[in-house]
Amino acid sequence: MSRDWGSLFDVDTDPEDLLEHFDTEWFRGQRYRHLSDERHGIERGTALVGDVVVRGYPSMPRALVLEPAIRETFDGPVAIEEKLNGYNVRVARIDGDLLAFTRSGFVCPYTTRKVEALLDAETFFDDHPEHMLCGELVGPENPYTDHDYSEIEEVGFYVFGIRHRESGTPMGVERRLDRCATYGLDSVGHYGTFTPTAAVDAARERIDDLNARGREGVVLKSTDGETALKYTTSAIHRADLEHAFELPFDYGRDFVFTRVMREAFQAVERGESPAAVDERARELGEAILQPAVETIRAVDAGEPVGETHTVRGDPKTISDLLSYFRDQGLELHVERDETDGEQRVVTFTKVAQSTRDKTRYYLGGGTIDE
Amino acid sequence: MSRDWGSLFDVDTDPEDLLEHFDTEWFRGQRYRHLSDERHGIERGTALVGDVVVRGYPSMPRALVLEPAIRETFDGPVAIEEKLNGYNVRVARIDGDLLAFTRSGFVCPYTTRKVEALLDAETFFDDHPEHMLCGELVGPENPYTDHDYSEIEEVGFYVFGIRHRESGTPMGVERRLDRCATYGLDSVGHYGTFTPTAAVDAARERIDDLNARGREGVVLKSTDGETALKYTTSAIHRADLEHAFELPFDYGRDFVFTRVMREAFQAVERGESPAAVDERARELGEAILQPAVETIRAVDAGEPVGETHTVRGDPKTISDLLSYFRDQGLELHVERDETDGEQRVVTFTKVAQSTRDKTRYYLGGGTIDE
Repeated sequence: MSRDWGSLFDVDTDPEDLLEHFDTEWFRGQRYRHLSDERHGIERGTALVGDVVVRGYPSMPRALVLEPAIRETFDGPVAIEEKLNGYNVRVARIDGDLLAFTRSGFVCPYTTRKVEALLDAETFFDDHPEHMLCGELVGPENPYTDHDYSEIEEVGFYVFGIRHRESGTPMGVERRLDRCATYGLDSVGHYGTFTPTAAVDAARERIDDLNARGREGVVLKSTDGETALKYTTSAIHRADLEHAFELPFDYGRDFVFTRVMREAFQAVERGESPAAVDERARELGEAILQPAVETIRAVDAGEPVGETHTVRGDPKTISDLLSYFRDQGLELHVERDETDGEQRVVTFTKVAQSTRDKTRYYLGGGTIDE
Repeated sequence: MSRDWGSLFDVDTDPEDLLEHFDTEWFRGQRYRHLSDERHGIERGTALVGDVVVRGYPSMPRALVLEPAIRETFDGPVAIEEKLNGYNVRVARIDGDLLAFTRSGFVCPYTTRKVEALLDAETFFDDHPEHMLCGELVGPENPYTDHDYSEIEEVGFYVFGIRHRESGTPMGVERRLDRCATYGLDSVGHYGTFTPTAAVDAARERIDDLNARGREGVVLKSTDGETALKYTTSAIHRADLEHAFELPFDYGRDFVFTRVMREAFQAVERGESPAAVDERARELGEAILQPAVETIRAVDAGEPVGETHTVRGDPKTISDLLSYFRDQGLELHVERDETDGEQRVVTFTKVAQSTRDKTRYYLGGGTIDE
């Protein structure tokens, strides 16, 4: 161990105790460590690659009621940006190689390949070797999420943060936007910077527009990038519930209460009429019950249930990815496995074992103490 | 300790280890012990009063899909009875006194008084001194539940089981009905005894009727009373959700997933059309969202939120009951406190602190990591 991790992370804990919470993984023959859960105040997702530290992306507080939350959170100008619905990826260049870290600090070989192909970031990293690009990987062809954006054909990487990889210190919003423009990096949508008071109406207008277009929501940020707050649309609450109740025994229990409460506070903040609350309630009920009914019927008919993804890449990357999922204990059901030029394109379902098994149990007359 | 509790309960555990799981309480100057949670296979609610054992009422499995559950559970005749929506009470006569035990084995002074006033059970206990009456206490005037039955003005006690208090062995269904008739005890509704195959249709017909009348559901029982299965109406799933989401941060999280899944399996078993599923979804959404919205608005307006009950009885019983709740850490908000002849009638709200405090926090701009 060549570095003093304890003082680097500014914790009193014995470095050995600290390191034992990290998982060890390998990527292209190199050993690295990552922290899957927050420990001793160190962010989840922090990774150690040789001597290099890549800090986790901090979790972001959520507003349930926009107006007072903005007032309580910010005392200066507030930037408003779009929150995309994909997965959070940090990209750093270490020993000349781009590495893509998922939220938990895992170096995902598939994502790394995609980022290598998508991102022309060499000049950026030549000029900012100790920074990392924090962004959302979105689009239909990825192995983790399945939200579609009409503007993205395969996959896209949209930067929402540039941070010093070792300290985690963010670049200010304006400077980050400027860097993205200068180096030709895609940025998430930026809607301007407002006083806290003006930000309330601006955010509401954006939320209405994003909601109508079925998109996720907004992130509000202090101009130094240090303080952030997220707020989401009714459309994404329903989409989350639909997704969760397609696999109710895998996700439903965790998702339903939080989304219901987001809807309830949103209805109250908007001062909705009985008719508007009723419409919201009807759509909420449909988002919950209909996918559950469809899944029970699918299990009854013997069809596989689970999350279906399509991935595309060179044959080795794809086969490594599928092996990685299988090694994690996932049961994969391959629907399609084709070659497109030099690329392998696979559509597969991560079988939702809990939903399949519990649904079968109840359909077979199983009972429950509850 | 005068009895060999270990051999009585047929467990290998050291009797001292067993007894330390029991809570000690006092009722009218007598010490007793009760088991608030199942331990070592001994039912929750088991109580020890002096040398007398009063066994807990066993938890009852629930069917999510009626037809296969009946087929898997029963291999002989099945009695169908109504499941009432009140609270489970066991009544035993010990040293000449009737005692009413709640589900957790607590001797509730209020319930004991009500049962003494309601129940003319002296002859029954003269002839069956070692038995206990297991029944549902229902009606508007009780301190625990608030479901109204049109036929009950204040409070009623409906027997659904007669068991040997020490062994817990149930009396067969026919004999129990006969004992109720002979001794003038009210019984839960009994719909007849069927073959398992015929019981499926009979239960469905009853469920349709009960659902239309806003009632809870049915219990199916083997004729020896040993095996039981419950199944509930859509009306009670919605009523549960409405109740839970009136106090969302106290109950919503625990209630919502299970009720949604009962609705989903019921819709599938009934082979409902898209229109019928949509109607069920709409009603589900309304039962969840509307009470939550109303409660957030009530908190915003500074109104107390919680479960409101009315109790009636002699002044000492009522003041003991209110003290008991306050000693448990409940915050009570008294809405009405009147005298009706020699009886004190109090309407009070058990303040839902979690719902009040969390709702205030979010309305004040509090954020959440989620």
